[in-house]
This record gives sequence, C-alpha cells and structure tokens, in this order.
Amino acid sequence: MKKALVIGGGLVGSMQAANLARRGLRVKLIERRLDLRKIELQAGKSINLALSTRGWKALDMLGISDRVKKIAIPMYGRQIHDIHGNESFQSYGKEGQAIYSVSRGELNSVLLDAAESYDSVEMNFQTKCVGVDFENSLAHFQDSVTGETFEEQADLIFATDGAFSAARADMQRTARFNYQQEFIPHGYRELLLPASSKGDYLMEKNALHIWPRGGFMLIALPNPDGSFTCTLFMPYEGENSFGNLDSDEAIDSFFKKQFPDFYEMMPDLVGDYKSHPLSDLVIIRCYPWLKNTTCLMGDSSHAIVPFYGQGMNSGFEDCSVMDDLLDENSGNWLATLDAFQKKRKPDADAIAELAMRNYIEMRDSVADPNFILRKKIEASLHENHGDKWIPLYSQVTFSHIRYSEALREGKRHDKIMAEVMNRPDISEVWNTLEIESKALELANSGKLL
Amino acid sequence: MKKALVIGGGLVGSMQAANLARRGLRVKLIERRLDLRKIELQAGKSINLALSTRGWKALDMLGISDRVKKIAIPMYGRQIHDIHGNESFQSYGKEGQAIYSVSRGELNSVLLDAAESYDSVEMNFQTKCVGVDFENSLAHFQDSVTGETFEEQADLIFATDGAFSAARADMQRTARFNYQQEFIPHGYRELLLPASSKGDYLMEKNALHIWPRGGFMLIALPNPDGSFTCTLFMPYEGENSFGNLDSDEAIDSFFKKQFPDFYEMMPDLVGDYKSHPLSDLVIIRCYPWLKNTTCLMGDSSHAIVPFYGQGMNSGFEDCSVMDDLLDENSGNWLATLDAFQKKRKPDADAIAELAMRNYIEMRDSVADPNFILRKKIEASLHENHGDKWIPLYSQVTFSHIRYSEALREGKRHDKIMAEVMNRPDISEVWNTLEIESKALELANSGKLL
Repeated sequence: MKKALVIGGGLVGSMQAANLARRGLRVKLIERRLDLRKIELQAGKSINLALSTRGWKALDMLGISDRVKKIAIPMYGRQIHDIHGNESFQSYGKEGQAIYSVSRGELNSVLLDAAESYDSVEMNFQTKCVGVDFENSLAHFQDSVTGETFEEQADLIFATDGAFSAARADMQRTARFNYQQEFIPHGYRELLLPASSKGDYLMEKNALHIWPRGGFMLIALPNPDGSFTCTLFMPYEGENSFGNLDSDEAIDSFFKKQFPDFYEMMPDLVGDYKSHPLSDLVIIRCYPWLKNTTCLMGDSSHAIVPFYGQGMNSGFEDCSVMDDLLDENSGNWLATLDAFQKKRKPDADAIAELAMRNYIEMRDSVADPNFILRKKIEASLHENHGDKWIPLYSQVTFSHIRYSEALREGKRHDKIMAEVMNRPDISEVWNTLEIESKALELANSGKLL
Repeated sequence: MKKALVIGGGLVGSMQAANLARRGLRVKLIERRLDLRKIELQAGKSINLALSTRGWKALDMLGISDRVKKIAIPMYGRQIHDIHGNESFQSYGKEGQAIYSVSRGELNSVLLDAAESYDSVEMNFQTKCVGVDFENSLAHFQDSVTGETFEEQADLIFATDGAFSAARADMQRTARFNYQQEFIPHGYRELLLPASSKGDYLMEKNALHIWPRGGFMLIALPNPDGSFTCTLFMPYEGENSFGNLDSDEAIDSFFKKQFPDFYEMMPDLVGDYKSHPLSDLVIIRCYPWLKNTTCLMGDSSHAIVPFYGQGMNSGFEDCSVMDDLLDENSGNWLATLDAFQKKRKPDADAIAELAMRNYIEMRDSVADPNFILRKKIEASLHENHGDKWIPLYSQVTFSHIRYSEALREGKRHDKIMAEVMNRPDISEVWNTLEIESKALELANSGKLL
C-alpha cells in the first residue's frame, strides 16, 4: 500500500487526503494549526467563499455534496448598490444557476471529517513543516506544543500548505525553479453586517452584494445566521485608500459618503472596522510543481486574487483533474503528477489573469451602462443559442471548460462584442434578430480569432 | 562619521564600498568567498565581461579608469562566423567606439584595491551573511573558517550579494515584497580557445566573435594572453541542446557541424567542454529595494541575462546614479536611497527586457540580410544626423540615456524602420537622400510614437 504525505490540512489538503484514501493510499495529513473542528472559528481571513461548478464536481467525487449543500446559500446574481443607495440585480447565469456562499471554516470541517472517515487516513495538528528533502522523499516537522522534531517519509508528498508554502520555499532553492510572488496595490478588510434583532437578513439573501466605486469596492456574502460577511477592497495608498482611513472620523465619513445604505445598517461601523485586520492580496506563480515525488497543489502553486471566486474552486479542480489523470495513466502516480503539472499550469495562469480582470469588472464595469447592455446581449445569445455562445463568466463559473480555453474564448468575445456594440443605435436594437445574427456570424466566421 | 555595511565584495560591492568611503563614510565590506586577489582565478563563471560607457563613468568617478584600461581590450564590432566558416564584420557604433573585454577577476581585484586604498574601509573575507535584521539595521554573519557567528550594526546596509542574495531572501519574507526569479530555457558553458604556440590570437583580436545559429550561439571574447574565452548559449532540451550533448561523440560532431572554423582551432574540444560546468541564466526582478536602512544594489535587485553586455554596466551605473542622487538630496542618505529605488526600478526593468531581446538579435537576426540592411541605414542616419537618430544599441552601450527611455525609443525605431524597409527596392535605394528624409520625417512627425 503506497503511503502519501499531505502537508497542510486546509481546503485542498483535506480534500486531497480524502481522495487519496478513496484511491487506496495510506495517508498522513499534517497541519500547522489547531484542528479547527475543536475551536471557535476566528474572524479575519476570508471567512466566506463562493462555491461553484468546478468545486461541486470535486465534492461529488467524494460523495459529500449533499452535506455541503446544507451549509451553502445560493446567490443567483450580483446585487449592485449605487452611491445613492439604489439597488439593481444582474443574474450570474441562466435561470436557477447560482454560486454558493459558504463558510471556509465549516467547509474545511466537513472535508476533514470526510478524510477522517477513511481508516487509512491519519492526522496530526499543531505540527509545522520545517523543510522537505525532495531527493529522499521525506519532510521534516516540528510539533508546536512539545517542540519535538521528526521526519516523515512517504512514496508521494503533496504540498497543500498554501500561498506561503514551506515546501515551495525549499523548492525555490533547487535548480531552475521559476517563482513569482506579486502583491497587488490593494488590500482587504472584512466587516460583519449582523442580522436584524429578529434574526432576519437586512438585505436580499440570495445575492452577492457589490458597492462598485471604480478604484475600490465593498462586497457582501450571506451567512446562514442572517448576517453578511462584507469585505472592503481598496488600495493601500492614494485618495481613497486604507492609508487615509487613519482615524475614527475618517472611517465614519468615508463609509457615510461612499456606502450610505450600508452605513445606515451597520450598528458599530468604526468598532467593527477596527476589529478586523488589514490583509494583503498576493498572486503566486511558479514552475515546476513537481520535484521528484513532491507535488505542489492549490495555493502553494497558484495563489490568485479572490475576484472571480475561483481560488478554492481551482484548488478543488486540481484534485479532480489529478483524479482523472490517474485513470488516464493507469494508476501510475509519478506519470500522473508529471501530466498534472503540464496540463494544469496553463489553466492556473489563465485563472490568475481572469481573476485580475474580474477585479476591474467588479469594482468598475458593473456600474457602466455599456457593460450592462453587453451582458444583456450575451445573456440573450446564451439563452437562445447555448451551444454557440457561452459568456465568459458562465464558462468559468458554470462549466468545466479549461480556464485557458475560457480565457482565449473570452478575449475573442471581447472583439466580437466590440464590433456588435459599435453602432449608434445599439441600445434600441440590441434585442433584435439582426444583432443576434451578426454576433453569431462573427463568432462562426473565425475572422476575429 | 556614518557607518556603512556592504554585504558582498563582487564588482558592485567593491565599487560601492570605494565610493562610500570617497563620500566620507566608514565602511565595512564583508564577502563570502576568499579574497580573490590571493588565489588563482577559477574557471567557470562568466570570466569575461564587456565594459561600456556606463561602466566607464562609474570607474571615472573613482578615478581608476586608466588603471582598468590597461587590462581591457577594445572590441569595435561583431565578427560573425557563418556555418561555412566565412566571416563578416558589423561595427558597434561610430568610428572608434568600442566595448571592452575585461576579466571579471582582474577587474574585481582593481576595485578591491580601490576600496582598500581608503583608510575608512575595512574588509572581511570568507564570512557569510546568514540574515539581515532590517528593523535594527544589522546583519548576522558566520565566519566560514572558525564557524563563529557575529552581528554587525550600521547606519546604512548595502546588499550587493548577487542574484542569490541572502539579504533579499530575508526581504522576501517581509510584508508585500514583490519578487520574481525566472530561469530562461537556455544555459551556458564556457570553453577556452588558447593562443597559438607563438602566443598570437587565432582570430581577430578587437572584435566580439559570434557564431549565430538561430536557437543557439557561440561567442568569443579576447583575453590579454592571446586566448579567447568562448561561451556556448543553448537550450537545456530539444534538438540542439545541452541535453543532447551527452557523449564525447555527440559533442565532437555537434561542434564539427555547427562551428567548423572554431572546431579546427580547438586543440582539445571535448576535454575542454567537459572541464567547464553548465550554468543557468536567471532574471531577478523585485521591489521595493529599500527596507528601512538596507538597500539592494546590482544583481541582488535586478539580475539580467548577459546578452546586452549590461549586467555589470548597469550595476556600476547603480553606483553612479546613487552618487548623483546624494548630491540632489543634499547628502541625506535615506532620502537618496528612496529616490534611488524609485528612479532606478523602471531602468532595471527596461534593461532586463532589452537583454532578452538582444539574445534573439545575437543568435538569429545578425545573420539576416534584412537586419544587416536596417543596421546600415541606421548607422548612416546616425553618422549624418547624430543628434536626431541614435540607434538603440548605441543608446544602451555608448550613452547615459536612461535604459527606460532607450527601450521606448528603440520600439519607436522598430516601427519607423518597418515603414522605411517596406518598399520592394529598398536594397537598391537604402543609401539615398530620399530614404534618409523619410526616416527623419517619420522620426520627427511623432506619428509613430
């Protein structure tokens, strides 16, 4: 029985551990922090996530989708809040298609339970990886409580220890390892909008709320208890920046001016703002992901910004793609891991780019009438000719089309729609057969490839 | 008297130490390796460098240019060797303009002597930096002989410890530090073409020799003793690759086929090939360069590929640019260092890009008749209208124009020359007033900005 070591018991690590056990391996999972099932969840780091089609596929693979559905809230579209407090709604996809708000901690707990349900999985918590010996296929650990150090040998090592991976830091010192860490000029800070005194939601429950303001934005995702986890994304420096919110007065007047409806709902805005840390946003790119028997997965190999809601989904897709490749490679693990890195790297690069593009869309374009019109034309095309036109957002969120293909197709859509939108009366004729034909003709002609 | 610590006594570190002393600071320079003035120079790592205008300016600043001229050999152009052994010559610039072949070790020795000529400079060798404490402006060291560790506090710390900088590795772990290490798919291996039995040069002395072969190339730079230091740049994998030169026979037949004239001159090709290591080529990009009082300089902040001969020159220019900024900032060092990183970063990015572009030019374009014709047109424009047209190569190599400006101007030249070359009879009329006027008109019109 092959033995696998999984470094890191976060979302991807616990899913991978469960799946390795399902595929007949003996698994040891080692996690730096406490077992989060035994502690109160802490505020701070991206408590809410948006689970979508790629993520569900991996949960299906483990047979735990039904269990996760119980803790997930569907969001059918974006609820846009303008600077006067007016709201409007933009569907994400077709009727019934949704992304799902879910608590990181609760989802992680379900996944740890799933892994632990296999007898062949053993878990150690509060144990820190202090280095990986790639040649000898072993890793060094330190027990954070006793201070004791030990090593763990395995046939395969999966490093799912996140954007600041210890395993990857060691890989960085091996020959010809390409690596990039890029911090964007924006950070984020969470706020909690509580439920009403009666426990009701203060805003539409089944939507992802956005207050787009150009260079910055506020978003909110629903929690099962009636509250919303809200996140302010903003530059560190400049006119509207975290740097300028340096006093209670500055915080208060900024929210009052920029997000008046949100301001009215928050019982203790300034106190809540100050109780959450300011966090960075980093993009990690590297290659190769495989060194001898050690393979990076999830954020350790491709951390992205959160604006497409695909960080977790792409990590989960790593697990399902690898699972498919194991069949294609007749159960040969080393061949699978090499095929995995080769196939998955362009997709990881593509979703990194898409996520940055979506930041501009969320904080800016969603408030632009031309953008809204284009979305309407695309939605109509998709509704009437679903086989010929899948909007980029739907490809990324509601399909299993490779991210790299979706990005390529999305760039082609940009060119086609620029042509289509390029007539003065488009706002009157957008919903005509003529426009539909023109778009489909351009799409088929291959001229704008 | 302010105290400065210089980590690394390579080319940039020893130059910076000398200049800091010249500017009235007390300097401690600490170098990991042996004092290279006391040992035989070792083969292996880019023994020869091409010193050009930016480098000479920094040497002038220290008053040591005359001394360096004695060990430098002017190269007035490229001597191109085709696959049949035929040679042709392409001037680098105007009459008399040259880049200078110089031994890394000898130049480093001159710079260490220059630094040591100041009473206020103290040097430690065989002492390794094991960490920097940015907050407390001190660095930790270990004596490689005794194993003893100690710390060194200073008002200012300059990390000139190269592409694999220990100081930068620590910076990488501080908040929001952007970092990238990119290994290109090519490596390099040196060979030594000895002098004739009488001590004469076997090829033209005052040229940089190139055997361009598309995806790979061989180059050679003259040494004072009649020999040439030659370097083969080639991919690791693929048809013509280091990976495929895996036997004596493969090495022999590869050189015989690709570089027949070189092959004839080499007394022990296979033995010499195997006696040199295969080395990587890495591009390092990062920002910020300044953390409290510690400033990265040279390769530690912006290592580039060697194809423009600007690695050392840009490092030396770091020293002279910083020196100018110290005057502009009235001797305020911290203001100087911040101004330095802000001003210098776009130039470092530009020369990194230019160096990669020049690899394609050297291994490929120099053998292309269209490229040669374009060069001739540009040379003629430069000769007749030096104020209005400075070819990109001359801007980078024979001027102090900022790299970022040179790159911008070079891209504009590409567009202009594409227009100019876009007539069927260009090879007949290239040397006419009409063509000259057209190029200058396009350059002045700003249409192709």
